Amino acid sequence: MTPQPSFVLVRPQMGENIGGAARAMLNFGLERMRVVAPRDGWPNERAVAMASGAGRVLDAAGLYDSLPEAIGDCAHVYATTARARGLTKPVMTPEQAMADAHRRIKAGQNVAVLFGPERSGLENEDVARAQTIITVPVNPEFFSLNLAQCVLLTAYEFARGAGAEAPFDADADPATAIEREKLGDHYEAELDEAGFFFPETKAPGMKLTLRNMWGRLPLTRADIQTLHGALRQLKRHAAKGRGDQD
Amino acid sequence: MTPQPSFVLVRPQMGENIGGAARAMLNFGLERMRVVAPRDGWPNERAVAMASGAGRVLDAAGLYDSLPEAIGDCAHVYATTARARGLTKPVMTPEQAMADAHRRIKAGQNVAVLFGPERSGLENEDVARAQTIITVPVNPEFFSLNLAQCVLLTAYEFARGAGAEAPFDADADPATAIEREKLGDHYEAELDEAGFFFPETKAPGMKLTLRNMWGRLPLTRADIQTLHGALRQLKRHAAKGRGDQD
Repeated sequence: MTPQPSFVLVRPQMGENIGGAARAMLNFGLERMRVVAPRDGWPNERAVAMASGAGRVLDAAGLYDSLPEAIGDCAHVYATTARARGLTKPVMTPEQAMADAHRRIKAGQNVAVLFGPERSGLENEDVARAQTIITVPVNPEFFSLNLAQCVLLTAYEFARGAGAEAPFDADADPATAIEREKLGDHYEAELDEAGFFFPETKAPGMKLTLRNMWGRLPLTRADIQTLHGALRQLKRHAAKGRGDQD
Repeated sequence: MTPQPSFVLVRPQMGENIGGAARAMLNFGLERMRVVAPRDGWPNERAVAMASGAGRVLDAAGLYDSLPEAIGDCAHVYATTARARGLTKPVMTPEQAMADAHRRIKAGQNVAVLFGPERSGLENEDVARAQTIITVPVNPEFFSLNLAQCVLLTAYEFARGAGAEAPFDADADPATAIEREKLGDHYEAELDEAGFFFPETKAPGMKLTLRNMWGRLPLTRADIQTLHGALRQLKRHAAKGRGDQD
């Protein structure tokens, strides 16, 4: 299989749409599907029936309980969403994003593209874990792309951009999603203990903002180590002050 | 209506697909549909039901008995087909063809794009009436684009070629250099107090690394506030643990 992005279907609902997404992918030579918590379980008969000739995409698809698990090995994650809904994050067209994906893949990075559930799309908690948003530049007065069509346009752009050359500084040694996730967990836990998330009614929004920041920043592995180390040392220092055992 | 190509559905079969084509068009701002000899007559209830919000595309569609009538006023006609089948004719990708269409429209020409019936596609007799063939560069081992998807990709390319820019701009409200500097000072001071920069011989390098990280990351003002706040709260919590005055 040639190097390519993973397409991650997040909590997909109808089997028909999963099958349609598999066909849309294979039309443009993409075969790496990951599925997060499909509503109707897995494997899905209707998905298989709809996929017909693209059944092998489903057969090889990875199944995950949660989004963080599904993107754990990815250095760069794109989230497809119609509205950025207040999360600060670079927004690209499918064309720009897939050109970027080509450059990252060429530099050896694993990349993933997230597609939300049919009705509601990705939640803010999902988008917070991506580094870049993809928005298809549709007619602002009429938007009716379905899941398979959104997958189709993105796959098409990846295929179209194959061979796109452009100078690019791939981040040296980018952190993977699992490393970002653990950093986020570490800060959230320590800040929670320190009473940072106050008042309680605002805590979920504050946590989301912080998680989005870790998702958005182009952190390297070294950055992640530094940020863990800084937090550990701050805590150790505080413990010493209290006379606790280290 | 802005100048745009007419999309001509030649002998379409299922009403659902006609409705789907109308939606695909309107997603990218295209509203000129022409329909040639639809199998199930016209108007078509199923097409209307499927089109939902794009019903006005159907309402305004022209109905024709034959292809030559449908394209009578067009200076240039593109035929979408998977295989050229021995007809000598320029073959373009959707991207190339829609760029060409933009130039022709700008020069005042009427242009049309032909889409064939679902099962069989355009006949040679249809393709013979076109000046240019459009072939979507799909996976040679798997081709399963349906009518609405083929319309979607072509409409998308027309919109993309119109100078469609990224939906909006990322990095709203970026931090200024002085804000980065103060953030760096704050972290450096607290980490210094916590004994992070150890051993002393390595301290200058560690400080530089940290300062470089704050400089490199695309921080917004809100990020800076969050990072200051987190550090302040961690310190306040530690002080409480030690029984210091806050």
